[in-house]
Amino acid sequence: METYGRYYDDLAVGERFESGGRELALEELLDFAKRYDPQYFHADPAAAASSRFGGIIASGIHTAALWRKLDHEISGNIRWICGIAWEEVRWPHPVRAGDTLRARSECLSKRHSRTDPSRGIVEYRYEMLNQRDELVFTCRSINLVEIRPASAPG
Amino acid sequence: METYGRYYDDLAVGERFESGGRELALEELLDFAKRYDPQYFHADPAAAASSRFGGIIASGIHTAALWRKLDHEISGNIRWICGIAWEEVRWPHPVRAGDTLRARSECLSKRHSRTDPSRGIVEYRYEMLNQRDELVFTCRSINLVEIRPASAPG
Repeated sequence: METYGRYYDDLAVGERFESGGRELALEELLDFAKRYDPQYFHADPAAAASSRFGGIIASGIHTAALWRKLDHEISGNIRWICGIAWEEVRWPHPVRAGDTLRARSECLSKRHSRTDPSRGIVEYRYEMLNQRDELVFTCRSINLVEIRPASAPG
Repeated sequence: METYGRYYDDLAVGERFESGGRELALEELLDFAKRYDPQYFHADPAAAASSRFGGIIASGIHTAALWRKLDHEISGNIRWICGIAWEEVRWPHPVRAGDTLRARSECLSKRHSRTDPSRGIVEYRYEMLNQRDELVFTCRSINLVEIRPASAPG
C-alpha cells in the first residue's frame, strides 16, 4: 500500500485493489455475535446445528466489519473524511468459521462537492469473497474524501 | 417483548417498536475501531482531536452493530431466517462516546416468497437515535422470515 495521504485528486475512476486473505476463527464469530447480534444461528453452535444453515454463520454486520478491516489494507492510504451512504448491500453467501476472506474495491465515480470546495464525493463498489471465490458481501458506498489543499505538495 | 416465536404470519405492516436506551463508553468505540475500522478518527483520540469531527466518532459499521444489539430487544422474538439486503443506509449524525442510543423499527411491507412457500419476505425501516433525537443510523432492510408451518400452533 502507498504511504498514507492519497487525496481525492489522486484517486482514479476504475482503479481496483485487492487485499490479502484472512482466515476466520469460530471464536471470533461467536464473540461478535454475543456482543452485537445474539441470534441463535450466529451465537449458539448447538442450536445453530438444527437451523436452515446447519451451523453457525457470521452476522451480516460482522461480515461488513471483516470487510472493513481487510479494506483498510487497500484503502487506508486515502484521506477519508467519512462515509455518507451505502446502497445495494448484499450477503449472497454465508460466512462460516474456517473461511478465508479477501476484499476488493473499485472506484466507480468521483465529483466535487457542490457545497464545500474542500471535499470530493467518491463512489466505490466493495466486495468480499471467500476461498471458493463466492461473493459474501458487496455494497456500493458513497464517501467524502479530502481535496488536496493548495498548500499541500502535489 | 413477546416470547420468541413470531412467524411471518404474526407480523403486521405498520407495526412499530422502540428499544430502551444504552449509553456508549469511549473504550467500546476504541475497541471496535482497533479490531475492525482502525482509521485515526475512530481509533486514535489524540489524532482525532485535530480531525474535522474534533474527536473520536464511532465507525459506521460499529454504529450498525450497536443498532443491531438494540434492535434485538424489539425484534429478537421474530423467527428470522436471514437478512437479504440493505438499501438507503445513512449515518446522518456522528455517534460519540457518552451518547445514549435507542433503536426503532417499522414494518413496511410483507409478501410470500415466490420460490419457497415456507419463507416470507419482510421489509423494515430501521432507525437509531441519540439522546437529542438526532438520527445516527437508518436503513431499509429486506429479510426472510419463517412462515408458520401447518403443524405449528396458531
